[in-house]
Amino acid sequence: MEKNRVEQITNMDVDFAQWYTDVVLKAELVDYSSVRGSMIIRPYGYAIWENIKNALDAEIKETGHDNVYMPLLIPESLLQKEKDHIEGFAPEVAWVTHGGNEELAERLCIRPTSEVLFAEHYKNIIHSYRDLPKLYNQWANVVRWEKTTRPFLRTLEFLWQEGHTCHETEQDAHEETVKMLDVYADICERVLAIPVIKGQKTEKEKFAGAEYTYTIESLMHDGKALQSGTSHNLGTGFAKAFGIEFLDREGKLQTVHQTSWGFTTRIIGAMIMVHGDDKGLVLPPEVAPTQVLIVPIAQHKEGVLDVAYALQHALKSKMRVGIDASDKKPGWKFNESEMKGIPIRLEIGPKDIEENKVVLVRRDTGEKIAVEQQNLETEIPRLLQEIQKNLYDKALQHRLTKTNTAATMEEFKDTLLAEGGFVKAMWCGKESCEDQIKEETQATSRCIPFDQELITDTCVCCGEKAEQLVIWAKAY
Amino acid sequence: MEKNRVEQITNMDVDFAQWYTDVVLKAELVDYSSVRGSMIIRPYGYAIWENIKNALDAEIKETGHDNVYMPLLIPESLLQKEKDHIEGFAPEVAWVTHGGNEELAERLCIRPTSEVLFAEHYKNIIHSYRDLPKLYNQWANVVRWEKTTRPFLRTLEFLWQEGHTCHETEQDAHEETVKMLDVYADICERVLAIPVIKGQKTEKEKFAGAEYTYTIESLMHDGKALQSGTSHNLGTGFAKAFGIEFLDREGKLQTVHQTSWGFTTRIIGAMIMVHGDDKGLVLPPEVAPTQVLIVPIAQHKEGVLDVAYALQHALKSKMRVGIDASDKKPGWKFNESEMKGIPIRLEIGPKDIEENKVVLVRRDTGEKIAVEQQNLETEIPRLLQEIQKNLYDKALQHRLTKTNTAATMEEFKDTLLAEGGFVKAMWCGKESCEDQIKEETQATSRCIPFDQELITDTCVCCGEKAEQLVIWAKAY
Repeated sequence: MEKNRVEQITNMDVDFAQWYTDVVLKAELVDYSSVRGSMIIRPYGYAIWENIKNALDAEIKETGHDNVYMPLLIPESLLQKEKDHIEGFAPEVAWVTHGGNEELAERLCIRPTSEVLFAEHYKNIIHSYRDLPKLYNQWANVVRWEKTTRPFLRTLEFLWQEGHTCHETEQDAHEETVKMLDVYADICERVLAIPVIKGQKTEKEKFAGAEYTYTIESLMHDGKALQSGTSHNLGTGFAKAFGIEFLDREGKLQTVHQTSWGFTTRIIGAMIMVHGDDKGLVLPPEVAPTQVLIVPIAQHKEGVLDVAYALQHALKSKMRVGIDASDKKPGWKFNESEMKGIPIRLEIGPKDIEENKVVLVRRDTGEKIAVEQQNLETEIPRLLQEIQKNLYDKALQHRLTKTNTAATMEEFKDTLLAEGGFVKAMWCGKESCEDQIKEETQATSRCIPFDQELITDTCVCCGEKAEQLVIWAKAY
Repeated sequence: MEKNRVEQITNMDVDFAQWYTDVVLKAELVDYSSVRGSMIIRPYGYAIWENIKNALDAEIKETGHDNVYMPLLIPESLLQKEKDHIEGFAPEVAWVTHGGNEELAERLCIRPTSEVLFAEHYKNIIHSYRDLPKLYNQWANVVRWEKTTRPFLRTLEFLWQEGHTCHETEQDAHEETVKMLDVYADICERVLAIPVIKGQKTEKEKFAGAEYTYTIESLMHDGKALQSGTSHNLGTGFAKAFGIEFLDREGKLQTVHQTSWGFTTRIIGAMIMVHGDDKGLVLPPEVAPTQVLIVPIAQHKEGVLDVAYALQHALKSKMRVGIDASDKKPGWKFNESEMKGIPIRLEIGPKDIEENKVVLVRRDTGEKIAVEQQNLETEIPRLLQEIQKNLYDKALQHRLTKTNTAATMEEFKDTLLAEGGFVKAMWCGKESCEDQIKEETQATSRCIPFDQELITDTCVCCGEKAEQLVIWAKAY
């Protein structure tokens, strides 16, 4: 590239939204196209998604699920079979009305999610308790007609996996709902270094058609929350609407209990906003397409490039290691590797070669570490683990700092104004209070956390008796 | 399952089309849904696709390509930018006219292929020869509004990968076109055990918007051909329409040269029709989700299941090994594993355990082989290789038997009537002869093979001077 790709980005504390846009473009994660609200996921962004996808897919398979693929298009009559579902999704689907040059007799929507397709299929293939459980997952694109969009966070089209399962009993479906939420939490915490809070969505915020929705919520650098994965117990709603029945162990006809759960490219937006800084992206080593970038210093000098390539060759079975042997100046290469969030930069020049060492530079702390060449194979993997852990710890510390309690609406507003972040406050359970809190503070209920505390015994909003702690925040 | 899943399937020589439908349903590769012309790819079918995809994705990456993801929806004005392209695809696209409750100002088509989206992006990101080549690929779903559909072979929606590249020179683009055709041929021959013929499509059959199209063609059991992968040299057509220009090494503005190439779920249909038999699927070991199925005999007897599970445990790091410990009768398990095309069945009963051996049964030949337990780790991988090779050899032998030459239209019709298969015949190059041959014989030009022969020196149709050998066949 003749053009300097590492231009100044907006300072995150000056304009966080602009910082985000600058980073996704300058780190070459995405590009815009003439398709409104959609994004092009560029090689660097897609490689991150592939790493996330591979980690999650492995866990989905290990927990006994099979991948399948359902049609993209859903006939309107099929979508309408479950009442709450169609009500929730109708305002945000894209409609196909013509195929080739002909108008269709029935219009088709592009799947916003695939519950109804799975339900129809399950009715066909489930007859006996011996056919249960059915544990299916699909990796797919979905479309939701959003008005305002931002790369990864909210786009007309996004990529995700959606799990859909059928079970003999209510208890089995409940356990599945919990299990898959745990899988999502593990991917966030272990792979993406994003700490999450597990909890249940309120009735108002649950999935259209679900009995209840479990969620993991994470906190961004700017103090706003992001829903990072949801797992729904669908109960028997879809099953009754579609007639998914089976003969149980006593020979009686029963209705199956269902779950569904989804995890999307949105999480890349979370990863950017949790770990990024004023130099650009900061990638957790587990998902970084390049974990170590070798930057030769004074590469025109004899032997430097040879040693650099030899190092890459020696290390590549142990880590994802790249080399920047372009004719750009080292300073530019440093900036670029920082913008791209590469966890470790490995500098090697004539003097290092003489001393049989290299310099490792950590992206997360900026720390420079001289390491003897023969120790790299053990030292780099150790350091990558340390970086992964440090990113998690920092994010957790940030969340703890930005989590406050409120007993009154005054406290609620004050803490939100001062800190942003999560506000823990008691709630009476009435939707009217939820609505009022949103109106007065712009904060929404993120979840009723599994880990409950008793802050007061009255609702933060109406002052009536309250037994539930809710976590509130402004959210993406 | 209480229902017997292994029901009689139609004999392939009685009704090949019905045999095919029976196999895809009874082997549980697909199911129908209420979405016309689309299919549900069930776990067994999708696991096969994942194996094919993983093999191809590895080769695409090894040859230096990056995966990206482009939007699903294309504005009509963008699709219209390249004239031949829109003409070719307009009759078969699905149109989105409404988003949510609003009518769109401009309708959007669901991508039938993504040349225009890549072209628009390339215009944005290519400025200099230093930005070239750009070697991108995407895994995606596409929609083409087909009138008559059949699972895998022709569906409204299908899954594929589409490669899109930009190059400095005509020569570079040509080499890429050849290279990716070779990758497809390798996947077909090495992984799917399907022999292919490489060649060029005629002008009439080439991709809408391409300079020329290379193809690999394979022959099904019933003597009909199937186009198995195509690689297009797009020349500068899209690049000129979209203005994809770069400063070359001399500082002069040049237009890039492009290619595109695609490989689809259709290949699963080919695999079924090349290798299958009257008992059902026959899977090449390279793509079989289960390569070896352990069937315990007299499994109620003490120790049998323990030994069977111990065997599975011992073998699973070396192969994909399953076990059928259900309470079905062994005979049913045999039928089912044959229907599903599992390459090797491993039978183990009390007598085998006493003698410290097992019986291996080959799906491709029916051969039974007694093997000592301690030799399984080496014997099974060897046998899987032998089966893979045997399937390829049998398919090649079948194709050779069904390939004939014709010097006259009488010979052409006679051989097609008697044998079906490929007909090699000389062609003058006129589209009118191609049309006439199709009208008289229903055969289409499959390709102008790279390996040319001189059969006569006159066109099989018009009798005029002809220098090109063309391979003709009735085709899927």
